[in-house]
Amino acid sequence: MEKIKVGVLGATGAVGQRFAQLLANHPYFDLTVLAASERSAGKTYRQAANWVLTDPMPPHLADLTVQDMSTELECELLFSALPTSQATEWEGKLAEAGYRVFSNAGAYRMESDVPLLIPEVNPEHLGLLKEQQAKRGWTRGFIVTNPNCTSIPMTMTLAPLHAKFGVEAVVVTSMQAISGAGYPGVPSLDIIDNILPFIAESEEVKMNEEPNKMLGLFQSDHVDMAGIAISAHCNRVPVTDGHTVTISVRFKNKPTLPDILEAWQTWQPLPQQLNLPWAPQPALVVRSEQNRPQPRLDRNEGRGMATVIGRLRPCAVLDVRFVALAHNTIRGAAGGSVLNAELMVAQGML
Amino acid sequence: MEKIKVGVLGATGAVGQRFAQLLANHPYFDLTVLAASERSAGKTYRQAANWVLTDPMPPHLADLTVQDMSTELECELLFSALPTSQATEWEGKLAEAGYRVFSNAGAYRMESDVPLLIPEVNPEHLGLLKEQQAKRGWTRGFIVTNPNCTSIPMTMTLAPLHAKFGVEAVVVTSMQAISGAGYPGVPSLDIIDNILPFIAESEEVKMNEEPNKMLGLFQSDHVDMAGIAISAHCNRVPVTDGHTVTISVRFKNKPTLPDILEAWQTWQPLPQQLNLPWAPQPALVVRSEQNRPQPRLDRNEGRGMATVIGRLRPCAVLDVRFVALAHNTIRGAAGGSVLNAELMVAQGML
Amino acid sequence: MEKIKVGVLGATGAVGQRFAQLLANHPYFDLTVLAASERSAGKTYRQAANWVLTDPMPPHLADLTVQDMSTELECELLFSALPTSQATEWEGKLAEAGYRVFSNAGAYRMESDVPLLIPEVNPEHLGLLKEQQAKRGWTRGFIVTNPNCTSIPMTMTLAPLHAKFGVEAVVVTSMQAISGAGYPGVPSLDIIDNILPFIAESEEVKMNEEPNKMLGLFQSDHVDMAGIAISAHCNRVPVTDGHTVTISVRFKNKPTLPDILEAWQTWQPLPQQLNLPWAPQPALVVRSEQNRPQPRLDRNEGRGMATVIGRLRPCAVLDVRFVALAHNTIRGAAGGSVLNAELMVAQGML
Amino acid sequence: MEKIKVGVLGATGAVGQRFAQLLANHPYFDLTVLAASERSAGKTYRQAANWVLTDPMPPHLADLTVQDMSTELECELLFSALPTSQATEWEGKLAEAGYRVFSNAGAYRMESDVPLLIPEVNPEHLGLLKEQQAKRGWTRGFIVTNPNCTSIPMTMTLAPLHAKFGVEAVVVTSMQAISGAGYPGVPSLDIIDNILPFIAESEEVKMNEEPNKMLGLFQSDHVDMAGIAISAHCNRVPVTDGHTVTISVRFKNKPTLPDILEAWQTWQPLPQQLNLPWAPQPALVVRSEQNRPQPRLDRNEGRGMATVIGRLRPCAVLDVRFVALAHNTIRGAAGGSVLNAELMVAQGML
Repeated sequence: MEKIKVGVLGATGAVGQRFAQLLANHPYFDLTVLAASERSAGKTYRQAANWVLTDPMPPHLADLTVQDMSTELECELLFSALPTSQATEWEGKLAEAGYRVFSNAGAYRMESDVPLLIPEVNPEHLGLLKEQQAKRGWTRGFIVTNPNCTSIPMTMTLAPLHAKFGVEAVVVTSMQAISGAGYPGVPSLDIIDNILPFIAESEEVKMNEEPNKMLGLFQSDHVDMAGIAISAHCNRVPVTDGHTVTISVRFKNKPTLPDILEAWQTWQPLPQQLNLPWAPQPALVVRSEQNRPQPRLDRNEGRGMATVIGRLRPCAVLDVRFVALAHNTIRGAAGGSVLNAELMVAQGML
Repeated sequence: MEKIKVGVLGATGAVGQRFAQLLANHPYFDLTVLAASERSAGKTYRQAANWVLTDPMPPHLADLTVQDMSTELECELLFSALPTSQATEWEGKLAEAGYRVFSNAGAYRMESDVPLLIPEVNPEHLGLLKEQQAKRGWTRGFIVTNPNCTSIPMTMTLAPLHAKFGVEAVVVTSMQAISGAGYPGVPSLDIIDNILPFIAESEEVKMNEEPNKMLGLFQSDHVDMAGIAISAHCNRVPVTDGHTVTISVRFKNKPTLPDILEAWQTWQPLPQQLNLPWAPQPALVVRSEQNRPQPRLDRNEGRGMATVIGRLRPCAVLDVRFVALAHNTIRGAAGGSVLNAELMVAQGML
Repeated sequence: MEKIKVGVLGATGAVGQRFAQLLANHPYFDLTVLAASERSAGKTYRQAANWVLTDPMPPHLADLTVQDMSTELECELLFSALPTSQATEWEGKLAEAGYRVFSNAGAYRMESDVPLLIPEVNPEHLGLLKEQQAKRGWTRGFIVTNPNCTSIPMTMTLAPLHAKFGVEAVVVTSMQAISGAGYPGVPSLDIIDNILPFIAESEEVKMNEEPNKMLGLFQSDHVDMAGIAISAHCNRVPVTDGHTVTISVRFKNKPTLPDILEAWQTWQPLPQQLNLPWAPQPALVVRSEQNRPQPRLDRNEGRGMATVIGRLRPCAVLDVRFVALAHNTIRGAAGGSVLNAELMVAQGML
Repeated sequence: MEKIKVGVLGATGAVGQRFAQLLANHPYFDLTVLAASERSAGKTYRQAANWVLTDPMPPHLADLTVQDMSTELECELLFSALPTSQATEWEGKLAEAGYRVFSNAGAYRMESDVPLLIPEVNPEHLGLLKEQQAKRGWTRGFIVTNPNCTSIPMTMTLAPLHAKFGVEAVVVTSMQAISGAGYPGVPSLDIIDNILPFIAESEEVKMNEEPNKMLGLFQSDHVDMAGIAISAHCNRVPVTDGHTVTISVRFKNKPTLPDILEAWQTWQPLPQQLNLPWAPQPALVVRSEQNRPQPRLDRNEGRGMATVIGRLRPCAVLDVRFVALAHNTIRGAAGGSVLNAELMVAQGML
């Protein structure tokens, strides 16, 4: 198979760097275009990017010249790490120009005709693209989005449970890593020896809306929201990578704890069946130790693409409670969109 | 008023040091006895204690000689910072010998005839002491306990709400400081760049039982438990001092958000009315900023004795949710017992 | 004595907040003017300042209205927490207009006619003010500066040794707290689980020049530099407050280790003799434990104004080596200038 | 080539885990023996080891049964992660019994007939083994040691400079990661928001002695010490992995800065020439940015086996100064001994 030429939008930022890292030696994709703001354009990637990842910049990308944003990028498929404001402006323009845009930005996620996709959870939502192209008059281009980094561990753990038992209500508290705020992001004086009990106005809203869209029913031209009551308390903690959530859940059809464990452990969704390059095997890792998952020890599970679960036990108020963790800049950002694109390739949709 | 001679049991440990600090220049109490294990006995306090507090050891205590545990300590009132196993052994023995023991240990907290006391919340529970002395055949001595450090911010914020609106259910997630585990406590490799989603088997049990006892109804010889359903998720975070909790609450009589604010802001419990030396004024500090309370900025409110509240907003699953914070080794440990003793002095019960 | 009305320039920033805190209940000074940039002017201090200190904003200052920078501030004495660029513009203008400016900024520190002052070290350098006023045509106003925060622990420990034994050479490595970079300052992604081996181009230059000026000889219209060879390695570490330095020193007249200890322990400089309000007693605290000083345990010594020393031992390359620590935003910034002003008041120079 | 069966002594501890990780899929070695104390013996490795590394335990090792320490282990080559006291007892006994022991322990490092080896620095010191076996009456077995973790970045950077210019004196300050103290190691209360200016009595002694032995001249039955004056200030900092050192150096033959850079950049020592499996290519990475090396960004360079250098500049007291960094539990511990063994294999010495 010939590799597909791809580009990264917003390539110099923290999420853009993750895209570059994950795509550096990809079996489907050949990363040839790095685009960013005017300030970076014309410089080599080495000069333009203040590399913040712990593994070094892929050497063959270091000398690529960063390009200015435009609708004349020489590739068909784009991964977008643009900030919301630029995503709003550019992603639609690029899709209209025929590009296939896989976006980590929040700009289009809740549009009714845009798939908000986790390949393990709602691959059928890709059916929205027909409506998207028809409605917007786009012929070849489209936009597919991945969810907010904190929605990931919650939605991944709820998906197999919702299918079997019907999730009615969720109270969730997040303890989110600093890398989720990008760079420079959180000032160190705000977070060393401290916790911030607030991320942004929109964070708790996303935690409510996004899982309800992803767990909703695909109806050819839209998605019926799942109708789960979700109450989220979002916090920033002094952890570099890995978002941890404590979750209490109420079900329609009351499962036992072994029922739940079985639902998680036997879950074998599409990306794992298709053995997609970045699909974690398994998607969900259930730890039996009392003190797991922990971000420092578990965030790299499945090369940062797995969701790690622990401490399943009864809840005195809802039905059960547990802890879940996912790597926020791999699974929760760049890796999510890479897996979305892999799914479409493997299904012959590109 | 002549000062009452007091002693600290377990004086060399982290909580013992806090007792020493809070009692160093106290208007009611004169700290003259420091007792600890055999290993420390005979040394000066300076030699025996590995001082871990950020303010220096009170100079006049540094040269006191640490005594061995015994029932011949020369004071009438003892503050106990003993670990559970030693507390089980010694506190009863000392009460029997006539000492008034104000304990931070968990050993006697849930005994039906032992007051588990927050002076702002349940001062009437001191009535249990009559039953305690009668039942155990103690004439002069007794045991009064303060709650677990994580129960404090939850119980302090719920108390005025329970009185007015009836609390039915609580889902709470704690983010607890490392000082709560004592010294040496949490290994640094376990907590730098990390979160531990587990404290101890008993921690979440205490979070359920203790508030229900403290918010329960005093019935001359016992307390009727409050019957609130409490589900606690306890976590350790890389913060030195200050336990933060996110709380979702369901009420019997549904209050509006302004009703709740008013209940908190007009709360004027007994220690504040009596103007006890270590009573914070006010007991509850409600912050209006979106990103408060924060442990580094708010734990010293009211000299570490206040509970700081923020982010009151509706909850999509229960009724309302908010964030609360208290200093775990001041209000949540040594300071709690000091205030308990102050209350009894001020009420002429000693 | 009637209190002197004073103001703080740059009152809303991190150092400005420290000035406000230290001056809040000062026996000599009455803080009545808070000045800052246009953006803050007209707001109350509570609204304008993003308070970053662990103790709450002094309540009586919270409702003061922040004023715009001008030469019509209603007080005679100003403490400057301005950033360098604004200090360059405003401090001279204000001195010319008759204000006595005590500045923490670097702008004027190395000017030959401006005292770079540590009251314990070089009080006689205030003699430069005559030259300063004469040369610049200022009648009533002047500028007195305090040194860089990292120069403090080095200069304080060297001063009594230089006087007795003649310091020839110093190799110093600093481990500097994040608060030294102000707010927002150091991004958390740069410093959690990390060290930055670089502060700024100028930092190591200041570490060389400033001690040489302060330890230099006052010559009526200038200061003869001390001529000490100083090699500084400056690092940022994940500590909130407190700069630690490791120091190796070569002397002209070789002292024994007891000679050095005696020089430190018997040092009784002018601010301590005059018992100035913010003078630490003693100025130098020598710890005998092997593992001190530590920033978390020792930075508040002398209310953050003392310098704490430990680990004096021979050096295999120079003569001796040791560790020193000072609080960077108290002694190393606002507190330094407050003590400078106190010295002038106590000596009848204001 | 058939793989050599190897074992790890002290396999359950932090350094033992690193050995297991680095040897998991090794081209020369087949890890079949995991030995540890009586307490772990008989359990599977999964049960016995409290895994502290961020990458998961190699699955094929998880079910190996941990063996008790004995002289009947079924392999010829042993890697030792034993604590000093056990190393003193067991390593000699095992060598006598015919085992080839590659040890990370300090027990035998400074014995005159034991190679203290960095393959890049002093491969010829393996010649001591003849003397070692002769003197001790060992026929087949021997002991080869790797240096202390903090000696690594210093010795690696000095080696090519010493060969060309003659190093006379070094003043070095270390900022050492918490993983260097093992597990549980440093209590979190001692290191969060803090620095410890002391590691252990012996740490600064090792920093002086070990580089002098490794840079010394091999003389058939012993090594002539290099005679470099080394003054070390050792500190613990809140970093998980990666020891950073600031270094000032005086030379006999004064090099220019470009001379030094060239010496580092053209250094091509034996392990790199032999292309040993764990040899980093290159051994020394010189960064040109002002703010590098940093532990979080640079410790994984060369899979944790490289030494990263930055900030070369003149020193006002000695001749030049710079910053160096190496991963303390990979290059500075387990990886060091693995490379030692690889060198002997590649040279046909095993």
